[in-house]
Amino acid sequence: MANATLTISSKNYSSWSLRGWLLTKFSGLEFDEVVTAPDDASAKAEILLLSSSILVPCLRHEGAVVWDTLAIAEYLNEIMPEAKLLPADRILRAHCRSISGEIHSGFTTLRASLPVNIKGHFPNFKVWSRAQADIDRICTIWRECLSKSGGPFLFGARSMADAMYAPVVTRFATYDVKLDPQLSAYASTIMNLPEMQEWIAAARQEPTDIEELEVEY
Amino acid sequence: MANATLTISSKNYSSWSLRGWLLTKFSGLEFDEVVTAPDDASAKAEILLLSSSILVPCLRHEGAVVWDTLAIAEYLNEIMPEAKLLPADRILRAHCRSISGEIHSGFTTLRASLPVNIKGHFPNFKVWSRAQADIDRICTIWRECLSKSGGPFLFGARSMADAMYAPVVTRFATYDVKLDPQLSAYASTIMNLPEMQEWIAAARQEPTDIEELEVEY
Repeated sequence: MANATLTISSKNYSSWSLRGWLLTKFSGLEFDEVVTAPDDASAKAEILLLSSSILVPCLRHEGAVVWDTLAIAEYLNEIMPEAKLLPADRILRAHCRSISGEIHSGFTTLRASLPVNIKGHFPNFKVWSRAQADIDRICTIWRECLSKSGGPFLFGARSMADAMYAPVVTRFATYDVKLDPQLSAYASTIMNLPEMQEWIAAARQEPTDIEELEVEY
Repeated sequence: MANATLTISSKNYSSWSLRGWLLTKFSGLEFDEVVTAPDDASAKAEILLLSSSILVPCLRHEGAVVWDTLAIAEYLNEIMPEAKLLPADRILRAHCRSISGEIHSGFTTLRASLPVNIKGHFPNFKVWSRAQADIDRICTIWRECLSKSGGPFLFGARSMADAMYAPVVTRFATYDVKLDPQLSAYASTIMNLPEMQEWIAAARQEPTDIEELEVEY
């Protein structure tokens, strides 16, 4: 048994679980996964945006209980500095934290109208205008980072920002959001990470669907 | 002129501006305030929760541009370590970041239905059930911290978490939310901070009202 556990909920639907899990994988910290039961009411309430706040993922490690995704990122960055979850340069580190914070507190329309659904694929999905504004802002954020760093990740090497935006990459795949070549290459880089492939394979095996999140045509 | 600037918007209505300003004050970093014009469309859109994300407050310091509140907190903690924006103990630091992250990404019903309005006072305000759930969760967070630390601040000494929850304290005053003696004492501690008194005095001087945020009876 590892001396850390990470509690997550659905691999198909939970954007926050994916972020926390990727961050912990990226850090190199060994951990045991604790997956909440598929019918867990509070996990479902969080996924459906009905909770006051987000209590999963939750990392437990040597007496510390860390239940917010950015707090998990900062905690891992402190105990596993060799993983370089944040850029070494002060100015880039501030930029990385700014865009990570932006996705953490913002983009509520995107969250509500293009929910993460890794198994799903809706090629004719109509994006409404406020969600499109969110998508446009995310594309601007990515473009600024990739143009400055040269890629393949937002800050050149893999950082916490890539984990924070990974659920957006899966949303763009699920809802068939068109991207220009630069952003499309970035999305492919994320989707092809071995950690993402492992997560996606597990999501596809999940037996339980949350009906409220399934689009009907 | 200081070598840092902090861009903020309304002192009466902007919860994020208050957080960023308090954090910078707590850090001891000298800064010049840049206040957006009262009729600034993007500032108003952020206050009315119509923006994709929050780009104000924004701290500029020696080439770094930091536009998210938690990113500002982490940046200040790095460059001004003597201010102790985060607890020294690893486990308490993780706790402090967890509750700061929780208020950063959550409590959307509280944000929308009890908007910050420092000049306002609505003693007969009816809190609806989902906002009450947010209030109950915040009271639990505060109670856990204060019972463990003994007060007067959430982690004993002043930390970033107190800045993150300061707009909640003003909301509770504005909308007359009743608190038990332990939590009421904490709210008074925050309201009596000289920095809060300075902010509140400036908010009271603001000439422009945002009509959409004024409760009518």
